[in-house]
Amino acid sequence: MLEGLKQEVLEANQSLEKYNLVTFTWGNVSAIDRNSGLVVIKPSGVPYKEMTMDDLVVIDLEGNIIEGKRKPSSDSPTHCILYEKFQDIGGIVHTHSPWATSWAQSGKSIPVLGTTHADYFYGAIPCTREMNDEEINGDYEWETGKVIIEMFIDIDPMTIPGVLVKGHAPFTWGKDPMNAIHHAVVLEEVANMALHTYQINDLVRPINSSLLNKHYLRKHGSKAYYGQS
Amino acid sequence: MLEGLKQEVLEANQSLEKYNLVTFTWGNVSAIDRNSGLVVIKPSGVPYKEMTMDDLVVIDLEGNIIEGKRKPSSDSPTHCILYEKFQDIGGIVHTHSPWATSWAQSGKSIPVLGTTHADYFYGAIPCTREMNDEEINGDYEWETGKVIIEMFIDIDPMTIPGVLVKGHAPFTWGKDPMNAIHHAVVLEEVANMALHTYQINDLVRPINSSLLNKHYLRKHGSKAYYGQS
Amino acid sequence: MLEGLKQEVLEANQSLEKYNLVTFTWGNVSAIDRNSGLVVIKPSGVPYKEMTMDDLVVIDLEGNIIEGKRKPSSDSPTHCILYEKFQDIGGIVHTHSPWATSWAQSGKSIPVLGTTHADYFYGAIPCTREMNDEEINGDYEWETGKVIIEMFIDIDPMTIPGVLVKGHAPFTWGKDPMNAIHHAVVLEEVANMALHTYQINDLVRPINSSLLNKHYLRKHGSKAYYGQS
Amino acid sequence: MLEGLKQEVLEANQSLEKYNLVTFTWGNVSAIDRNSGLVVIKPSGVPYKEMTMDDLVVIDLEGNIIEGKRKPSSDSPTHCILYEKFQDIGGIVHTHSPWATSWAQSGKSIPVLGTTHADYFYGAIPCTREMNDEEINGDYEWETGKVIIEMFIDIDPMTIPGVLVKGHAPFTWGKDPMNAIHHAVVLEEVANMALHTYQINDLVRPINSSLLNKHYLRKHGSKAYYGQS
Repeated sequence: MLEGLKQEVLEANQSLEKYNLVTFTWGNVSAIDRNSGLVVIKPSGVPYKEMTMDDLVVIDLEGNIIEGKRKPSSDSPTHCILYEKFQDIGGIVHTHSPWATSWAQSGKSIPVLGTTHADYFYGAIPCTREMNDEEINGDYEWETGKVIIEMFIDIDPMTIPGVLVKGHAPFTWGKDPMNAIHHAVVLEEVANMALHTYQINDLVRPINSSLLNKHYLRKHGSKAYYGQS
Repeated sequence: MLEGLKQEVLEANQSLEKYNLVTFTWGNVSAIDRNSGLVVIKPSGVPYKEMTMDDLVVIDLEGNIIEGKRKPSSDSPTHCILYEKFQDIGGIVHTHSPWATSWAQSGKSIPVLGTTHADYFYGAIPCTREMNDEEINGDYEWETGKVIIEMFIDIDPMTIPGVLVKGHAPFTWGKDPMNAIHHAVVLEEVANMALHTYQINDLVRPINSSLLNKHYLRKHGSKAYYGQS
Repeated sequence: MLEGLKQEVLEANQSLEKYNLVTFTWGNVSAIDRNSGLVVIKPSGVPYKEMTMDDLVVIDLEGNIIEGKRKPSSDSPTHCILYEKFQDIGGIVHTHSPWATSWAQSGKSIPVLGTTHADYFYGAIPCTREMNDEEINGDYEWETGKVIIEMFIDIDPMTIPGVLVKGHAPFTWGKDPMNAIHHAVVLEEVANMALHTYQINDLVRPINSSLLNKHYLRKHGSKAYYGQS
Repeated sequence: MLEGLKQEVLEANQSLEKYNLVTFTWGNVSAIDRNSGLVVIKPSGVPYKEMTMDDLVVIDLEGNIIEGKRKPSSDSPTHCILYEKFQDIGGIVHTHSPWATSWAQSGKSIPVLGTTHADYFYGAIPCTREMNDEEINGDYEWETGKVIIEMFIDIDPMTIPGVLVKGHAPFTWGKDPMNAIHHAVVLEEVANMALHTYQINDLVRPINSSLLNKHYLRKHGSKAYYGQS
């Protein structure tokens, strides 16, 4: 069942260590099959090196286990609501990568300070509002997804493929699991450089909109001219 | 004698380099056998790569050598008093890992700034008070243990499995040596991110108690739902 | 065609990962054959590990493809104008290496704070002015080269073999591609240390001109006495 | 000639990369044979991986080449004067390791902020005064040694086995080349943690003299009790 997608999800989970995005098992990757509406996700607390395709769990968007002998990631409800609301995304990555997590802990969005950011994120990478006690004590992981979605009411999530959850850590997404991993790596690098940019010049301002448009649209959309395709 | 425990202690000591927690021989791991009250500990100043089970030293809680041809770690008295007072712990790790040591040198406790911290430490990671001349010039390593214990008069050490010794470096513990190593890795990562969080937003405040409870209890206690068990 | 130069360009591109200068394909190296006026450059968006000599593209200084089945790097016009104006350079490197990019994003030039800098750059490493909307919306990559050249009206580019493009990232150059890589590595290290130098002492001033002269001229020019030649 | 010492110097030079102390050839190690008064030193500008015992150069304390077909390190006069004035040292290391170099560039000495420092350096690691034009334009490398020696008029260099040369970089020494390397590694780690300690608490003060004495003398002198000897 969904063997191709499982292979992609397995490889994406295993790439978390290669890209220095995780300590222990602090990260998870999922993918959705839009035809069936089923999600393939990492099992909870299983080391990446030991993980096989049989460890992956297939769930529906309500979180019911459809296939698999493992418990799915405890963050599964967050993944599910994002797949439900962000109809164009095919893969999601959650990590506690240190630079992005430091921004998330600080409660600050990452402004567009350079073209590295603009090449992938068409605007600031938002940080969510603080969750209230009711949300935390309720269906916490589902509510985490809801505060993420609040930030994207007026933003196409495909143009800003990531978010910082306040006091917690980042989520990124993309058209498939490896694309979501790609955005997790970019976010970590952008978060690293944004802090150091402010340390060099605390009065720095975001790049102007012309430069943002130029770089984002050089890589995305109908007039893109980066790469071989 | 205590072959199983020696194997655990050897592997835990050797993992210090793998997790980038040590320079040269600046770290040591021990474990206690609660039945006999005996402690297995790293020998002083022996490189991890050359260490074998025969190099490990068995001592009692007064520090007497019961077995072994090596001198035990000079920090042995600190380990012994912690085992005596913290009855639930089975392993102890001491390192000079750079981020945690920077906090220890600064004399500041690490507040709970995010869920990475809350997943493992149920509150701020305390920094001890300064030791006075009498303590330093007396039985120094034993007194080091005593100032650590002062911080845990009202705290169950199993809920905050680590401490920063002011002007010195961190100690962590756990149910067994590898669990103590696990906490040493988490502490280093949490210390890293806490500094950078303040650098991004020097007005940041600890996460609220609901979020702390949610994350700590999601992984610990009778209602835990993280992992496969 | 230009097989020797292609070999150099291939090796220089592949060395970007070895020297930790790039994430994904965020860097490119080119070289010029001054006899024919032709430039060999990295293809756009091709991973370094998969790249072969056949992937390299030969272009003229107007950017016309002379040989190669790939699209050249989107930054090719910047390379071309630099080769046109800086007659002594033989190779160019562009990266988004994190320390240098943080300085570029901050809009600040890197002053000469020590001899590591003075050994390779005979003065501050300049940061360009902000590009205006007309430049960004016009022939952007060509205009990027033009704002770089503005900084070198009174400077021999062979004495300061690199620049920071404001809001973007660094370019370096040299007598050949590996020499340009060498300067990219030095720039990254100098950028790293310059930030930390200011963090230790925010009142620090550039080294005096005697020390700058001594170190630069110890390695460059007719009285150089460093190395075996 | 001096084959044993050459072997030590070769291994110490090659260990510079293993300990992440150097970029390119930015570091050199030497040793002295106190019987003959001859120094074995790294050749100038030769990559560590390609270096063999035949590349090493034997010089006397006036810098005359006694044996070897290579030019000695351009820093040789600094080594020579240190060997002349510091009669107990047997090996010297010079690097541009980034944390220590950042302190050297800042012009600040590194105070004793913790026991990691106190375990090896019996007081602050001094930063030299600025060199004047006459010194820089004269016998520069020899004068560099002289400003180092100024700092040790009232200090036994064996108790503080390293120094920061203002605007330049660190030198360390020890009883033999590998001991000098050991101190170069410690200095780099201490420099790293000292900056971060101030960033966490800019009001931090050096550890008190009791703790400094305790840690330094636990590892050095007649009452040392660290290690197996």
